[in-house]
Amino acid sequence: MIDETHDATRRSWVASAQGSDFPIQNLPLGVFSPTGGPPRGGVAIGDQILDLAQAAASGLLSGEALAAAQAASGATLNPLLALGAAPRRALRRRLFELLSDGAQDQARVAAWLHPAADCTLHLPCAIGDYTDFYAGIHHALNVGRQFRPDNPLLPNYKHVPIGYHGRASSVRVSGAPVRRPNGQQKAPDVEAPVFGPARRLDLELELGVWIGPGNVLGEPVPIGEAEAHIAGLCLLNDWSARDLQAWEYQPLGPFLAKNFMTTVSPWIITAEALAPFRTAQAKRPEGDPTPLPYLMDEADQATGAYALQLGVLIRTPAMRQAGIAAHRLGQGPATNLYWTMAQLVTHHTVGGCDLRPGDLLGSGTISTPDDSGLGSLLELTRGGKEPITLPNGETRTFLEDGDELILAGRAVAEGFVSIGFGPCTGVVAPAPQA
Amino acid sequence: MIDETHDATRRSWVASAQGSDFPIQNLPLGVFSPTGGPPRGGVAIGDQILDLAQAAASGLLSGEALAAAQAASGATLNPLLALGAAPRRALRRRLFELLSDGAQDQARVAAWLHPAADCTLHLPCAIGDYTDFYAGIHHALNVGRQFRPDNPLLPNYKHVPIGYHGRASSVRVSGAPVRRPNGQQKAPDVEAPVFGPARRLDLELELGVWIGPGNVLGEPVPIGEAEAHIAGLCLLNDWSARDLQAWEYQPLGPFLAKNFMTTVSPWIITAEALAPFRTAQAKRPEGDPTPLPYLMDEADQATGAYALQLGVLIRTPAMRQAGIAAHRLGQGPATNLYWTMAQLVTHHTVGGCDLRPGDLLGSGTISTPDDSGLGSLLELTRGGKEPITLPNGETRTFLEDGDELILAGRAVAEGFVSIGFGPCTGVVAPAPQA
Repeated sequence: MIDETHDATRRSWVASAQGSDFPIQNLPLGVFSPTGGPPRGGVAIGDQILDLAQAAASGLLSGEALAAAQAASGATLNPLLALGAAPRRALRRRLFELLSDGAQDQARVAAWLHPAADCTLHLPCAIGDYTDFYAGIHHALNVGRQFRPDNPLLPNYKHVPIGYHGRASSVRVSGAPVRRPNGQQKAPDVEAPVFGPARRLDLELELGVWIGPGNVLGEPVPIGEAEAHIAGLCLLNDWSARDLQAWEYQPLGPFLAKNFMTTVSPWIITAEALAPFRTAQAKRPEGDPTPLPYLMDEADQATGAYALQLGVLIRTPAMRQAGIAAHRLGQGPATNLYWTMAQLVTHHTVGGCDLRPGDLLGSGTISTPDDSGLGSLLELTRGGKEPITLPNGETRTFLEDGDELILAGRAVAEGFVSIGFGPCTGVVAPAPQA
Repeated sequence: MIDETHDATRRSWVASAQGSDFPIQNLPLGVFSPTGGPPRGGVAIGDQILDLAQAAASGLLSGEALAAAQAASGATLNPLLALGAAPRRALRRRLFELLSDGAQDQARVAAWLHPAADCTLHLPCAIGDYTDFYAGIHHALNVGRQFRPDNPLLPNYKHVPIGYHGRASSVRVSGAPVRRPNGQQKAPDVEAPVFGPARRLDLELELGVWIGPGNVLGEPVPIGEAEAHIAGLCLLNDWSARDLQAWEYQPLGPFLAKNFMTTVSPWIITAEALAPFRTAQAKRPEGDPTPLPYLMDEADQATGAYALQLGVLIRTPAMRQAGIAAHRLGQGPATNLYWTMAQLVTHHTVGGCDLRPGDLLGSGTISTPDDSGLGSLLELTRGGKEPITLPNGETRTFLEDGDELILAGRAVAEGFVSIGFGPCTGVVAPAPQA
């Protein structure tokens, strides 16, 4: 639903908003603490964070917008997400008015703003469950080719939105250090595994989906209603220890290779903010099977994807020391997912599984069909066989201690103001003494 | 630690306690609602439930016992479990005194009792994360033989405590109906999958572990300290849709085949109550590899297992109608796990993953090496090829709508009063209209 909050001619009196990841057309939701204060809901605008608890108490909000701000006044946004789209949209419209150039009450609203640089950002929700999908078909193909050159995709891939349950407890917000895990590794040519720090530490570039209203156990979400359960998106780095993964993952899937940490960007880029950027997914190859009817919806086929450019950047300690900016390893569009977010939601619930407000889904690693936007080092280095060279001459196969990894995302569509996700970063810390 | 609370000569003035699952030597922790009341912590004694909120408010508790009862007065036991063993033990000792034959204050304590028949039982904890292991080696062998007759166990099995993340949202307490899931199934001899109700609906007999104090992300729990993180055990039925599982599980593990529901018995049988029943696990076959040092602890090797008899019973609608009692499909000892619960805890955290109070671990399906105590229909019916016959002449390969499945558990040791787990039951409900 495109409305005046997407009008490209509108600007905010918060000057830093223009041209930033967070112009007035974005208004993403998060949880922050101002210096010394407890966590509460906030909205990013330029380099400022608007305090929703102060907004709720101001008298300047009413009706659904007030209900939404009140639900966002605590330490998590789960209560807000449980309310669904209407109050979230009402809050967006009211904040858009209040933050627009020439708005009345500017002085009062200015008092709700905290410089983001002085604030701590938190996870936006208490995550009940985190599920990671595998919907990036080029990633699945690239990885499959390394293991099964003749038959890279398993027979179920184009029928089943493959996913598995991840670990909710170890999801952290951007900026938290990523401690290299210890674990069992076994080289193909030796008899027994050894224990020690993972040596094939990798990133995975994914989109995260924040679930709004949930569903009742045993009552699946039909594909035509799935969008109503999607509150918004974030960037998600599914850090992976490839050596641990290779040894442990049969027959029940990845476990310690993934659960040491997952990083998300702090802001929920709402479904409302993303409305102008809806598009169709990349065309499926001729001859691909038609999905089963429970996954098919005409509107979803037409606009179930997002026109987002997603990038991966790295900065090593030597680059930091030399003042060299982070180096972009690649960039590609989010339309390279084989399944839409609505299809992921519907598939997740089709057997009766219940989603809850604030649950998190990962899309799976999003890679391009060519080498321009590969979403993992496993792909970029051909399984660690071909090191990449950085601007200062350093090389990498997998991540080394001290490396900073940055995911970036930006929505772009003709005639609309581009909006960003804010960074999703983590610096690799050494493994604990084993 | 064996103390007077394990004294076999002691009896409770609650007459129904004697000979029940819940004698005074058990005192398991749960959450219940008396008629019309809100959920709060309770302790099972015979056919009664002792109200911990009333106990906390009575003035009859003090010190650590009072702190424990206060932490158990709300709608979940997470705050109690976070406190660790000492307050839990103090509460146990004090309730043991108060409930013992000849105790002073009997009349006052009697006022805290609610007939269990009038109460609703709830999940004891808000489960942050649920992890399911695969430590029942005979189950792994039995299932592996069906798929890989020559090589039933994968090479990692005897080195890695194999586990995967399960779905926390769909864990339910005993008695909740188990709705048959719809999902994709593909027969080996057809090209494409079909969608419909699962036809190979199965149970899995497991032990559940309730986590007490958690650990900090990046700080693994050493094997020698793992016991301190185990608050107690329950029975766990990891309902499984084998047809969904077969088609979806490659390469990331089971997903919809498991996440439609998991049932646990309502009571946390505490580590304290289980102290007399500690034993060594079944001896490993000669030639099995020695686990890596991080998994090895002398005390754990000697007493890391539990002397529990675990059983599976079934009652079909026809049996209920004819007044035929539930039929026991098998029974076996919990020592048939290849890894101890301490090893599971330590492995789970060794890469840095954080556990939180109230987290739930499943052991994996516990089967006997022979046919006397197989923990799934997949094993009992040889993959559905050999139906089992029930006392009334009915046959089953997998579960049919209306079937009730009951898990039972009992701790038995010479010189000690046997304690039980209470039932873990579910009746299969028809799949939603697809």
